[in-house]
Amino acid sequence: VNYQKSDLIYEGKAKKVFAVTGHSDLIIQEFKNSLTAFNGEKKASVDKKGQLNISISTMLFKYLATRGIPSHWVKTDENLNMVCKKLKMIPVEVVVRNFVAGSLKKKFNKPEGEPIQPALVELYFKADDLGDPFISDEQAKWLKVSDQATLDSLKKLALQINKELTEIFPKVGLKLVDFKLEFGIDSDGKVLLGDEISPDTCRLWDLKTGEKLDKDRFRYDLGDVVEGYQKIFDKLSKLLEEK
Amino acid sequence: VNYQKSDLIYEGKAKKVFAVTGHSDLIIQEFKNSLTAFNGEKKASVDKKGQLNISISTMLFKYLATRGIPSHWVKTDENLNMVCKKLKMIPVEVVVRNFVAGSLKKKFNKPEGEPIQPALVELYFKADDLGDPFISDEQAKWLKVSDQATLDSLKKLALQINKELTEIFPKVGLKLVDFKLEFGIDSDGKVLLGDEISPDTCRLWDLKTGEKLDKDRFRYDLGDVVEGYQKIFDKLSKLLEEK
Repeated sequence: VNYQKSDLIYEGKAKKVFAVTGHSDLIIQEFKNSLTAFNGEKKASVDKKGQLNISISTMLFKYLATRGIPSHWVKTDENLNMVCKKLKMIPVEVVVRNFVAGSLKKKFNKPEGEPIQPALVELYFKADDLGDPFISDEQAKWLKVSDQATLDSLKKLALQINKELTEIFPKVGLKLVDFKLEFGIDSDGKVLLGDEISPDTCRLWDLKTGEKLDKDRFRYDLGDVVEGYQKIFDKLSKLLEEK
Repeated sequence: VNYQKSDLIYEGKAKKVFAVTGHSDLIIQEFKNSLTAFNGEKKASVDKKGQLNISISTMLFKYLATRGIPSHWVKTDENLNMVCKKLKMIPVEVVVRNFVAGSLKKKFNKPEGEPIQPALVELYFKADDLGDPFISDEQAKWLKVSDQATLDSLKKLALQINKELTEIFPKVGLKLVDFKLEFGIDSDGKVLLGDEISPDTCRLWDLKTGEKLDKDRFRYDLGDVVEGYQKIFDKLSKLLEEK
């Protein structure tokens, strides 16, 4: 099937979302080259970033599907449009952490890279005007983000996804430090993984050298962004495209 | 029994804690007149504050005991020393909120005074150097603050205490907006309410006028501190001393 973009439904910081002609249950995600950090305070546009992210996300969504974890992903076409199931998004970012970094390091003054066992799952309320604050289950329910059963299933899914991803990344010389997921409810009422899984949403370090290959290169001016993302793509595609 | 202060074990921002001669299972809490806010940035000393807080705390601990909720409180002597069971304190502040105020208002940009139904329970990690950050259950377990069963019992106790307190405060013309509790484990391994319950640790508004009678008077320069605390004492003692 060839899916055609219709109206722009939503434009975020890193993606455009379109309706699909004749398919009210689908959307098309277009990945932009723009990068933002620190709640939009730092901005840039980087050539090839969008196409690397859509390629990496596609590989990971496909891989997770083979491991019994479905997502909204339907297909990625030759124009690098990602056709996805339309979800009613749950306004929460689910973060999984295997090693201390970023805001967790700052909040608790822990050494960067300290292992976290078992992995730590956190919820952040998606609200740009509030700076996406960290929330507890109780706050999520008060904010009517979700009920407890849905929160429990988000966390369980996030940990299952972490289990799968922490099995493949070390095989290609990468350490999965932490990552952010978003979920939504499909037309059958099922909780599905949405959004993307890319170096914009994961911290990935070179397993041997510790080099940071993800969006932290942009946040903290650690080196060429596309070079890092390209390394992740090259390593992952060697493993996942062979399958 | 007349309990005698021995060594100073700990001096906090608002209390001194002493060992008790011949009673290794007890402590004596002495309430100071000092007030601090904003993680110690604002400081003052207010005559009579300590004695009002110990009197209010005593009334509330005694009342809760009659309602089947024991605390560390043993007796308050004529020198206004509070003799308490020695607890192994759990390094977490348990906050219960019935109406929006304070940091919750700021974090979520909600109107002050908006009712919260059911009451919201929050955990804050007791760590002065980190500014007592808000934490989730998962973070509490990662930080080895407590196990899940203990966290569950803290929250359950906090909500029971809230149920009791929200029954008495409106009877004396006060609105219990929110409050902070601390818990510890006694020598039998039982979770007991510790610390204090006072206008330093509760937000209490006049039910009719909305006047703030608690520590927010000090935080935001809203009026004479002791005058507010005295009003709370007078109202409460009318109800609780009659019993």
